[in-house]
Amino acid sequence: MFTKVLIANRGEIAVRIIRALRELGIKSVAIYSTADADAQYVKLADEAVCVGGPQPADSYLNMQNIVSAAVLTGAEAIHPGYGFLSENEDFAELCETCHITFIGPKPETIALMGNKANARVQMQAGDIPVIPGSTGFLKDEADAVKVAKQVGYPVMLKAASGGGGKGIRRVESEDDMSAAYRDATSEAKISFGDQRMYLEKIITPAKHIEVQVFADRFCHTVAFPERDCSLQRHQQKVLELSPSPVVSPEERQNILKIAVRAAKTIGYLNTGTIEFLMDQDHQFYFMEMNTRIQVEHPITEAVTGIDLVKEQVRVASGRPLSFKQSDIQVHGFAVEARVNAEDPAMNFMPQAGVVKQLKLPGGPGIRVDSGIHAGDMISPFYDSMVVKIIAHASTYKEALKKLNEALAEFEMSGTASNQDFLQALLNDPVVRKGQATTDYVTSSFMPEYTKDSIQEVG
Amino acid sequence: MFTKVLIANRGEIAVRIIRALRELGIKSVAIYSTADADAQYVKLADEAVCVGGPQPADSYLNMQNIVSAAVLTGAEAIHPGYGFLSENEDFAELCETCHITFIGPKPETIALMGNKANARVQMQAGDIPVIPGSTGFLKDEADAVKVAKQVGYPVMLKAASGGGGKGIRRVESEDDMSAAYRDATSEAKISFGDQRMYLEKIITPAKHIEVQVFADRFCHTVAFPERDCSLQRHQQKVLELSPSPVVSPEERQNILKIAVRAAKTIGYLNTGTIEFLMDQDHQFYFMEMNTRIQVEHPITEAVTGIDLVKEQVRVASGRPLSFKQSDIQVHGFAVEARVNAEDPAMNFMPQAGVVKQLKLPGGPGIRVDSGIHAGDMISPFYDSMVVKIIAHASTYKEALKKLNEALAEFEMSGTASNQDFLQALLNDPVVRKGQATTDYVTSSFMPEYTKDSIQEVG
Repeated sequence: MFTKVLIANRGEIAVRIIRALRELGIKSVAIYSTADADAQYVKLADEAVCVGGPQPADSYLNMQNIVSAAVLTGAEAIHPGYGFLSENEDFAELCETCHITFIGPKPETIALMGNKANARVQMQAGDIPVIPGSTGFLKDEADAVKVAKQVGYPVMLKAASGGGGKGIRRVESEDDMSAAYRDATSEAKISFGDQRMYLEKIITPAKHIEVQVFADRFCHTVAFPERDCSLQRHQQKVLELSPSPVVSPEERQNILKIAVRAAKTIGYLNTGTIEFLMDQDHQFYFMEMNTRIQVEHPITEAVTGIDLVKEQVRVASGRPLSFKQSDIQVHGFAVEARVNAEDPAMNFMPQAGVVKQLKLPGGPGIRVDSGIHAGDMISPFYDSMVVKIIAHASTYKEALKKLNEALAEFEMSGTASNQDFLQALLNDPVVRKGQATTDYVTSSFMPEYTKDSIQEVG
Repeated sequence: MFTKVLIANRGEIAVRIIRALRELGIKSVAIYSTADADAQYVKLADEAVCVGGPQPADSYLNMQNIVSAAVLTGAEAIHPGYGFLSENEDFAELCETCHITFIGPKPETIALMGNKANARVQMQAGDIPVIPGSTGFLKDEADAVKVAKQVGYPVMLKAASGGGGKGIRRVESEDDMSAAYRDATSEAKISFGDQRMYLEKIITPAKHIEVQVFADRFCHTVAFPERDCSLQRHQQKVLELSPSPVVSPEERQNILKIAVRAAKTIGYLNTGTIEFLMDQDHQFYFMEMNTRIQVEHPITEAVTGIDLVKEQVRVASGRPLSFKQSDIQVHGFAVEARVNAEDPAMNFMPQAGVVKQLKLPGGPGIRVDSGIHAGDMISPFYDSMVVKIIAHASTYKEALKKLNEALAEFEMSGTASNQDFLQALLNDPVVRKGQATTDYVTSSFMPEYTKDSIQEVG
């Protein structure tokens, strides 16, 4: 087992990883930008190294400085968390070159799944259902028109190297294809230096159902009960559930099998999440794979009792998985809310500022993962998510209720938060029935919510 | 079901009960003394009524004012929490007279179990093993000498109406009996207005093993996996474990059966805890029964996934138990630490003061039940326990480790705490083996700990 691990991340996920390392008896090294010198995770780590200025490119994306920090402090492994360099194959490879274990899959797996068009091809080869669309990259605009006609409009044009909503265009009909193709490719070229595109039919309404997989070096691959992350605003998840209240035990068994097959197809190592769309007939389609730990991993931990971050470290150190598929049992339901420092009244604009008072909820079935304490500065340079609140209860309805009550107790003064928005979502009848699809928040919920908010302000 | 419930308590247990009521959709009424006007539980409740001055006798023990508050606010039931009036049969009876449901057992059960000598007699009649000693009350000093000779010294003289360590004397030999009997009876008369005594053999070394029972009005009685509360300082529990790491599954089954039989013997209703001593041969002896919810109930909730406070309310409203004995399964181990505002360097003297900063731990498997937030005043009038931290993990060793790491993250400035003492206990080899007996902290651990503390101060 490692004796020291560096965390190439910040905020709540850095705190989460430090806690896992402590329980494993491993020393932790935090890295931080000059903006994060007083952050909680820096205080909690055994050692901390400043790796650059506040701009992510200068610090949390600065591969050389981060690997140097690992070498200098004698860390044997690096945990990348989520975001930043967690899905960067060059970083994983640089770690390997420097004889530092990257806690995640092999660099070639990251590269393979990072190219969404290639990922589709791989999955099709492994007999995994994918969304109807192009096979591999589109040759040109004419090819896009041809494939779109085959699968039927509306379709989504997507950059093969895409992410974060860049290089993506929805196309309603053949008339719009030309402009969409031109815009998407030029945006993709600027954002990723790669203008290759692929195309998928738009499946709507649909649910975002994802399955976390875990694999060790001894050919053991397991899958965890699905998460339902259909509640999204601007492609960002806001509330996540596990298991999905509308997936039956038979469907669960089926999708877990598909996920294991998908992971085995690409020789996956460590943990990752396979995202599917589930249409109204409960057919599943592979969407993409996240080759890292996810923000919403705590709901899986809650319902299974398995510590996923500790297991990541164990498996990366060369140990076999500490559980079998049959050990993964679902107990009750869990729901996670992402509390962001943002102002719903100002179109959810991220808010920087000093947190004056912070009251965190507690009690039975409530887990809080926070990266901040009262008195801390929320920096404008990074993601606005500051606290995750997870509720676990026997039934889906009880879990929602518990989370709602926990949010009612939550207080953060000094900066705005989406607390009220999250509570309104938890009270929404469609959400309470578990029937929300990926378009629900934007198309149906937000217009009503915004109207009410404006009335309140007025 | 009730629509409104009054909580005849304060601090963390009031917060705990409010949370349960909210999840049940029941309005909560808090009562408070003038010293608690700004307390967190008062803010969290739907309504709050001031019932008197800071002295407990004027407010939290002021039956008339409390019942008046319930009547005035239209509360249909009162939850007494622990301490204060929770084991006062007159209060339970006053509630009944005023047509308010007392959330707990019947007044006559409280009275029966409150008299420790009578409780022994009842248990013996129900074929429950009791500690060797007197049958019923001692007639006089000569009777005490006679019984002590039969069971063998050392023995404990105890006030039948006792509690809180008053009216109790340890007697090493016949020579000491006369003085001990005189002191104990006079102290009992002053403290309880009742000088009747009973006598028990001192069983040492022994473990404090307790079993929580639950009974409804439909003759269903169940028992929960035992708690090991052997770690005590001055008769106060400091760290509690569930299940006991040294009780075998067969012994568990046996003691749970005994507990159910004991509860049935006295026609018990709602929840309560039967405390046993377990000697070195793993023989169990009935010690006493607490006819209320206990401070350490969260560890049982953690390992069983059952919300005991919500169930108290449900059962008090006349519903049957929502689970059967076979539904009560043990998952992993849980440990609770009681964080007190007290100064270990000054013989653990309670410390009043304003909490400047409060950093609570979080993450997977950590539950926090706190009655305070930063900025709050810790009053000198009440118990010094301000926060409970509960860790739940797969194994006993992991649970201890998790709790220790959580305590390392905990920070409370502005007043002293027993944080360091709790961490030292969690690192102690005897504690880590789960082998500590009730005398361990006082006899073995404290002398070493105090020595170290003094050296540190020096």
